[in-house]
Amino acid sequence: MKHTISLLVENKPGVLSRVAGLFSGRGFNIESLSVAQTLDSQISRMTILTTGDDQILEQIIKQLNKLINVIKVIDFKNNEYVGRELALIKVTVTDKTRSEILSIVDIFRGKVLDVSPESYTVEITGDENKINAILDLFLSLGIKEVARTGSAALIRGSKSRVVRNKKAGNLTSESTHITGEEVAHREED
Amino acid sequence: MKHTISLLVENKPGVLSRVAGLFSGRGFNIESLSVAQTLDSQISRMTILTTGDDQILEQIIKQLNKLINVIKVIDFKNNEYVGRELALIKVTVTDKTRSEILSIVDIFRGKVLDVSPESYTVEITGDENKINAILDLFLSLGIKEVARTGSAALIRGSKSRVVRNKKAGNLTSESTHITGEEVAHREED
Repeated sequence: MKHTISLLVENKPGVLSRVAGLFSGRGFNIESLSVAQTLDSQISRMTILTTGDDQILEQIIKQLNKLINVIKVIDFKNNEYVGRELALIKVTVTDKTRSEILSIVDIFRGKVLDVSPESYTVEITGDENKINAILDLFLSLGIKEVARTGSAALIRGSKSRVVRNKKAGNLTSESTHITGEEVAHREED
Repeated sequence: MKHTISLLVENKPGVLSRVAGLFSGRGFNIESLSVAQTLDSQISRMTILTTGDDQILEQIIKQLNKLINVIKVIDFKNNEYVGRELALIKVTVTDKTRSEILSIVDIFRGKVLDVSPESYTVEITGDENKINAILDLFLSLGIKEVARTGSAALIRGSKSRVVRNKKAGNLTSESTHITGEEVAHREED
């Protein structure tokens, strides 16, 4: 079973290593992971794609919730969500294949970011399946290199899962460790 | 100093945790990290954005090169490269702000992926600065949530840093542990 989960964590050294360690400790491989700051520079969001047994993942989620530095775990299993990934693909170009490559890029609404005599570097975004589809098409033409970001995901609709901004210092204390529950909807207006 | 480095690693449980541990062990925070499979499902590529002292990073890179499971480390410091990130932004929408939001999305060549009565979920790609610029614009209109993938990066030009496909099993043995050097250009034609 494929799973997408998202974590809000404190932006501190050691957090990523501990989260990744929980997965590997149970032999669970992470297929893709992306982590970057949120609007609050003290909080990062991780999105993890993983494959494996439902029950073991449930245990991992419970343990993630227990980790200090983990503010919230969102399992997308029971939610409608948008998941998108970015891929940079360096594809071999010859006079014979140039127009075919450009029309594939066009169909997939991609962008050519870099041009050299022998290759194009193409940017594509989409869900995992779309990225895999364009990789399949390019494979027969010759791919030199690929860099994929892994997925970013948000729940559909207007609901927000962002925790309220807290004053510096607060977030780093253990007492603000919050598990499993949505802390607060951020109201901007 | 900001640094972008890229790692080719074996796609195995524990690798991410060890790599992240090397950074956190020296108090080096990872600003963003993305990891996903390459064309060879046994090999993953990590892209890491980090800030900190040049000398300490050099030490970290040396230690990364020594890690079993790390096939290659690419420091983008002395190379021209393309780096791109994807962000999903859930922005608050009202009748007053709708057209302004849509024109910002248009200017930044973004896409509206999901619409609800109170929000749009927007996909934007670009370098870190471009993502930060659109976040700044949206902030005054109201952002409910952000998910960023962190950067993916490839060296400009037609050069390839992909290691040659190896037969299953080979890659997982210690004897194929290769450090620092480019292993082979992949020739597709």
